[in-house]
Amino acid sequence: MAAGADMLEGHTGLYTDMYELTMAEAYFRDGTAATPAVFDYFFRTLPFGGGFVVFAGLGDALDLLEAFRFDAGDLDYLRGLGFAPDFLERMGRFRFRGAVHSIREGEVVFPLEPVLRVEAALLEAQLVETALLNILNFESLIATKAARLRLAAGPRLLSEFGLRRSHGPGGVLASRAAVIGGCDTTSDVYAARRYGLKPTGTMAHSYIESHGDELTAFRRFAEARPEGCIFLVDTYDTLRSGMPNAIRAAKEMEGRGDKLYAVRLDSGDLAYLAKQARRMLDESGLGYVRIMASNLLDEHVIRSLLEQGAPIDLFGVGTRLATGAPDGALDGVYKLAESGGEPRLKVSESLAKTTLPGRKAVVRCSDAAGEFGADAVVLADEPDVARMVHPFEPGQSLRLADFAKERLHVKVMEDGRRLGGPEPVARIAAYAQSRLAALPPEHKRFENPHVYKVGLSDRLAELRDGLVRRFREEE
Amino acid sequence: MAAGADMLEGHTGLYTDMYELTMAEAYFRDGTAATPAVFDYFFRTLPFGGGFVVFAGLGDALDLLEAFRFDAGDLDYLRGLGFAPDFLERMGRFRFRGAVHSIREGEVVFPLEPVLRVEAALLEAQLVETALLNILNFESLIATKAARLRLAAGPRLLSEFGLRRSHGPGGVLASRAAVIGGCDTTSDVYAARRYGLKPTGTMAHSYIESHGDELTAFRRFAEARPEGCIFLVDTYDTLRSGMPNAIRAAKEMEGRGDKLYAVRLDSGDLAYLAKQARRMLDESGLGYVRIMASNLLDEHVIRSLLEQGAPIDLFGVGTRLATGAPDGALDGVYKLAESGGEPRLKVSESLAKTTLPGRKAVVRCSDAAGEFGADAVVLADEPDVARMVHPFEPGQSLRLADFAKERLHVKVMEDGRRLGGPEPVARIAAYAQSRLAALPPEHKRFENPHVYKVGLSDRLAELRDGLVRRFREEE
Repeated sequence: MAAGADMLEGHTGLYTDMYELTMAEAYFRDGTAATPAVFDYFFRTLPFGGGFVVFAGLGDALDLLEAFRFDAGDLDYLRGLGFAPDFLERMGRFRFRGAVHSIREGEVVFPLEPVLRVEAALLEAQLVETALLNILNFESLIATKAARLRLAAGPRLLSEFGLRRSHGPGGVLASRAAVIGGCDTTSDVYAARRYGLKPTGTMAHSYIESHGDELTAFRRFAEARPEGCIFLVDTYDTLRSGMPNAIRAAKEMEGRGDKLYAVRLDSGDLAYLAKQARRMLDESGLGYVRIMASNLLDEHVIRSLLEQGAPIDLFGVGTRLATGAPDGALDGVYKLAESGGEPRLKVSESLAKTTLPGRKAVVRCSDAAGEFGADAVVLADEPDVARMVHPFEPGQSLRLADFAKERLHVKVMEDGRRLGGPEPVARIAAYAQSRLAALPPEHKRFENPHVYKVGLSDRLAELRDGLVRRFREEE
Repeated sequence: MAAGADMLEGHTGLYTDMYELTMAEAYFRDGTAATPAVFDYFFRTLPFGGGFVVFAGLGDALDLLEAFRFDAGDLDYLRGLGFAPDFLERMGRFRFRGAVHSIREGEVVFPLEPVLRVEAALLEAQLVETALLNILNFESLIATKAARLRLAAGPRLLSEFGLRRSHGPGGVLASRAAVIGGCDTTSDVYAARRYGLKPTGTMAHSYIESHGDELTAFRRFAEARPEGCIFLVDTYDTLRSGMPNAIRAAKEMEGRGDKLYAVRLDSGDLAYLAKQARRMLDESGLGYVRIMASNLLDEHVIRSLLEQGAPIDLFGVGTRLATGAPDGALDGVYKLAESGGEPRLKVSESLAKTTLPGRKAVVRCSDAAGEFGADAVVLADEPDVARMVHPFEPGQSLRLADFAKERLHVKVMEDGRRLGGPEPVARIAAYAQSRLAALPPEHKRFENPHVYKVGLSDRLAELRDGLVRRFREEE
């Protein structure tokens, strides 16, 4: 069990927008299906008003590319929609046989950067567009949200438990991405098994209620699951009922050689209640019992709680993490950059919405201290880049001579087969934290973060501007 | 292929929060696993600042309940997490054997109403909580958003195409829910096959670009797919390039006996461009060619476009529909209402957050014209309800004698088996529209909709208030 493909019961070829199929048939019909093409995945807008995106979803996306095909039932279905027999015969043999160059999963990335590049026959590269966007946009959104939560929570434990509010089975990918971005654990057992994540959980109000009285419920739960035991203390009244009962049950656990792991606050003023709960626990000799907080948390609430000195050791984050609130989507797109060996672009009234033509790479420039300073988008065959120009302001440029340079793309798939096995989520997560650590703090703050510099090599800018000029002249 | 269960490759039992499993083990250990229990699914907050929710997801939820189990690999995995052998032996035999009473899928529902009621052994009813919430919260959110889009779009065609921005495989459920709420078609071919929806699509900018020039691209596409053909006209310049080329290709289609279905505007000022495009089409004798608009549409943008007189015939809605923007989640919960024959509730400082105890039903009261006037939440065994009281304002009541009354719950599952086959999405969608039609307009407006009256029968209010009093006295 590794990725998104198996969740589609094998009907991976249908996991696409209808227009990919109608275009595929048109390419098949007009003889351009085999034309070599290059597509870029990139986004334009940073989510959450933030300064970065943590790229995630690559592992699932590659799995889906490997699995992408049409079975007999799929072809029958498409025949019923009016697709022609000769085209469907071709689709029955469909395999994605292209190459994929990608920035590493877990990398910190920025608008306009060609994060992932597909090189394949036009029909193949086109047909996988929707599936790639579906996975990469969503997992990158959630990994980015989780990274922000981690920035707010510091070294405290951070658990994702949004499955009840996540978007159906999308919650499974949300759990994976949350751990990539910075969560320690997830409540989602399915995702935990699938991706090798650490599952954790506490108890619900219903457990307390079904036992009639709270103390009995705590006692029985502690007997059944003494290890990592967490009592939910707000079913009736946190300070007058929940905490005294939790303390009594915790002292009884001590008598059996067990230790209560934590109490969980799930409503009310979490800052006030955490301080009171901490005092009550400490006065009872339960200094080792941790305090967990949950209830509509996000990075801003967590930061506020900690600024108020709330002695919270664990945060449980659900809805706002698993749905990527408030944005709900990353605006990533998949655009043609080359076909038949010719650079291509989509022209727009504004240069900002005109796409970047050609086969490209990203060069990350770091200063002497190892901090990221700027990224240059270059043509893939450029050996070095001495300066970069602003993507939309022709007069502005930046000398790159003094920076250490690193090329961010790796070939991850060739002839439709991934190179190397799936990367474990824990390793991707560690990579993400190491890269976030090298991003200067001004790009990580929540309010008006400093814009990270992304520029173009002179050659790339000239290629784009020349094509735009040619189009304007033809018009 | 019918629902969400198969998307989990059979590992349905793990599609849950970890705490459901730790609670299940505790119930198993303390002897309460078989205690008869009743849980309610309900929500507290109407999404989108609106006045109603369209309930959706029931079909998928029932499928998942029927399929919910643990295979040998799941049990091995849980053993590795520290669950005990005797508990896992019980889980190996787990089947959901409870009853479900539910309001019909597609019904218009309101806060506090027990939309769906599960009656089962405590362990069984608890274990399926996360899966139910995951499906019902999400599909109801999206169906509600789609219903709002339909209200704005009137009789015009409405197509969902959010798969590229939806939350991974959650997009499949989004497409189903979008059609239940009011969309005519979806771009998502997988969902279309799975649920019997109508798939539609146009073309991408890449199709135009890969052909080098726009006119060639239109010509070739029209030859390959003449039926329902839609030209995307904004790749280079909508009015100076896209429309003239589309008109030329459309006239050539006429020569072959084909008719262009529509042109699609995907950027720029849609109101202005639609008017110009309409004029250009009409002046060329192409009055039959429709105009489609897309690009970050939602109910507010659609309403604004139509208020400006934009001659748009089809709307394509993606991100904001498939992600349920801006809310992203419905806050539905699943709460214990009865265990061991005793009514249960969660007490809170405010009556508004105190849950409603006991086995309940909803009585919808309609006026002589057939318009919905009020809903009364009653105890399931109450034969009739003559008046209802405000749920949180004890002094306020409403006489119900003059209303026609209808009980909204139907038993949809017994002993873990659904009663009757899955309902076709088209029928659910038609039911939703018929019910929305009976909801007075003041509850459907977008700005400060009038609050629909939901009250409690006297007996239910007395039961709740008595339990709260008893708890306060014990304290």
